[in-house]
Amino acid sequence: MRIALDAMGGDEAPLKIVEGGLQALKEANNRFELVLVGRKDEVQMEVSLHSPEGLNYSVVDAPEVIEMSDIPNVALKQKRNSSIVVGLNLHKERKVDAFISAGNTGAFMAASALILGRIHGVSRPAVGTTLPTVDGNSCFLIDSGANSDCRPQHILEFGVMGTIYAREIMKKENPTVALLNIGEESSKGNELALLSYPLLEKSGLNFVGNIEGRDILIGKADVVVADGFVGNVVLKFAESILPTLKSRLKLYASGNIFRKLQVGVMADTLRKALKGFSYEMLGGAPLLGVNGISIIGHGGSTTLAVKNMVLRAEEMVNHRISELIRNSIKKEK
Amino acid sequence: MRIALDAMGGDEAPLKIVEGGLQALKEANNRFELVLVGRKDEVQMEVSLHSPEGLNYSVVDAPEVIEMSDIPNVALKQKRNSSIVVGLNLHKERKVDAFISAGNTGAFMAASALILGRIHGVSRPAVGTTLPTVDGNSCFLIDSGANSDCRPQHILEFGVMGTIYAREIMKKENPTVALLNIGEESSKGNELALLSYPLLEKSGLNFVGNIEGRDILIGKADVVVADGFVGNVVLKFAESILPTLKSRLKLYASGNIFRKLQVGVMADTLRKALKGFSYEMLGGAPLLGVNGISIIGHGGSTTLAVKNMVLRAEEMVNHRISELIRNSIKKEK
Repeated sequence: MRIALDAMGGDEAPLKIVEGGLQALKEANNRFELVLVGRKDEVQMEVSLHSPEGLNYSVVDAPEVIEMSDIPNVALKQKRNSSIVVGLNLHKERKVDAFISAGNTGAFMAASALILGRIHGVSRPAVGTTLPTVDGNSCFLIDSGANSDCRPQHILEFGVMGTIYAREIMKKENPTVALLNIGEESSKGNELALLSYPLLEKSGLNFVGNIEGRDILIGKADVVVADGFVGNVVLKFAESILPTLKSRLKLYASGNIFRKLQVGVMADTLRKALKGFSYEMLGGAPLLGVNGISIIGHGGSTTLAVKNMVLRAEEMVNHRISELIRNSIKKEK
Repeated sequence: MRIALDAMGGDEAPLKIVEGGLQALKEANNRFELVLVGRKDEVQMEVSLHSPEGLNYSVVDAPEVIEMSDIPNVALKQKRNSSIVVGLNLHKERKVDAFISAGNTGAFMAASALILGRIHGVSRPAVGTTLPTVDGNSCFLIDSGANSDCRPQHILEFGVMGTIYAREIMKKENPTVALLNIGEESSKGNELALLSYPLLEKSGLNFVGNIEGRDILIGKADVVVADGFVGNVVLKFAESILPTLKSRLKLYASGNIFRKLQVGVMADTLRKALKGFSYEMLGGAPLLGVNGISIIGHGGSTTLAVKNMVLRAEEMVNHRISELIRNSIKKEK
C-alpha cells in the first residue's frame, strides 16, 4: 500500500506534515509506503532531520504550491504542478492508494472531484467530520461543507456514505442516522428537511429521525446528515469551543495572581478531561463519494493530527470504503 | 408600565416564574406593575409564599395551559383561555406593555404574530438571541428559529431589527452586522447567502461582510444574521456546550477519587470564569417585528433567568423598540 501526503499543505508545512507522516510510518512499522509530494529539495531536507534510515518512504517532486489564499478554480488551472494536483494524479493512476492534504480545502475538494471523479451513482461527494460526544464516543457529521445547496436525494446519499464510514471506520454496528433539524417531529424544519425526512425513512438506513443542534454532542446518533452549509457552520462553531474556553479562562485569570494559580492548576485536568475533543485525534475529514481515498486535513494540522490522518487513510484503504460506497449507492437507487 | 408574565409557562412553572418575577419587581423597586397571568388560585398560592406585601403586582386569571407537548396551532385554537393567549390579548389591548413566556415556544411565536400582528413593513418577525463572546461581551444572533426558509429580503430585515436591538439594549454604538456564512469572501455560500450579501452591502447598516461559525463566539460582529434554520441549529448547539463540558468532567472523574478531587476544586473556578455563558443572564429571546414586546424564555428558565427577562422587558419598553423598528423598516424599503 502507498499513502501519499501533500507535504506542502498546511499552515506549518512542510515541517509538521513530514514529521507527522514519518511518525505514522514508524508507528505502523513500515506497513505501507509513505509518498511525500512537494518541492523535492525542501521535503528531502525536512525528512533528513528525522533520521529516516530504514523508513519506507519516497518523495515525488511537485514544484508548485497552491497557497491557502489562492482561489481554488484559478489555482487548479494555473498550478498543474502543484502538490495537490500531482498527488491526486498519482492516485488516479493507481500509483498511490490514498492522498491526504491539509492545504487549501476548496482547491483540494474541487481537484478531488475533478481528477478522481465521482463514484457512479453519487450525485455529490461530501465531507464528513468526526465530532466527539460526551460519552467518550463520536459521531459523523456529513456534509460538513462540500455542498452549500442540496436536494433531498443528496441528503439521502450522505446518509448512505456516512453509514458505511461509521460502520467500517468508527466500528459502529448498524449505525444510527439522524437528520439535523430544528425540532424532533417529522413536520418540523425547512423545505429541504421536510422533503429529506421521508426519503431517509423509507431507505434501508437505520434512520432514527430528526435531531436538534443540542443532540449532536450528546451523541444521539452515529451519523448526522445535513446540507453542507448548516454542517459547515456547526463544524466551525464546534471548532471554536476549546479556543473560546481557553481565552475565557485567560481573561478570568488576567491581573489576579490568585486566579492565575487556580486556572493554572485546573488547566491540566481540563486538558485531560477534554482529550478527544480536539480535531487532532480525529484523523481528518474524508471526502466521500469520489473514486479514491481523499482526506482533508485542518489547515492548522499538528504533527499528531497528520500522524492520525495517515493511519486513518491506511484504515480506509484496508476497508475499501470507495468500493463499499459504490455498491451501496447502486442498491439504494 | 405593566409587564405581564406567563406564570404557567416553563418546566418549573409557576414556582420559578413567580419567584423570578417578584424578584425583578423588588430589584426594580416597584417601578412597574407585574401582571402574572395563569390559573389564579395556583398563582396566588405561589405568590403568597414570597411575602408579597407592598409589591406592585396583580394576577389575571387564565384557566387553561398550553403544555410543552401541545401542537402550537391546535393548542391556540382549542385553548383560548390559556395564559399565552390571555396575556397576548392583554398586550394587544394595551393593558400591558410587554408579555413574557417560557412556555411552548412554537405556540408563543405563532400567537404573538397572530394576536399582536406584524409591524407594517416587516415580512417576518424573527427571534434574536444574545450569545456571550470571549471578550466578556456579547453578540445578537437573528433569526434564531422563527423562520426555516428565508428570502434575502428577510435576512436584510433581520439585520435592521438586530441593529436596533444591539444599539438600544446592548448599548453598541453603530453595531456591526455580519452574515453567517461558510467563507469570508462575498462569493461564498449557499444561494440565500449569495443573494443576501449585496442587499446587506448596499443597506444603510454597518455591514462587515461574512463571518464563519468559528467567529461567532470570538465576537467578530455585534449582530449576526442567518436564516432561522441555521440560527436555531447553532443556538441549540451552543446551549449544549456547558452541559457537555459538565458531563465530560463527570465522566473523567468517575471512579477515581483523585480525579474527583481535582474536578471538584476546579468546578467553582470554571463556573466563575464561564459566568455569562449561561442563558440565564441573557434576558430571554425577543421576538422582533411584532407590534409589541414579546419575549421568549428558555423552557428550563430558572428564577434568575426569569428575573433578567422581566428587567429586559422593562428596558425594551423604555427604549420603544417596536416603534424604532417600525421607523427603520420604513426607511430601508
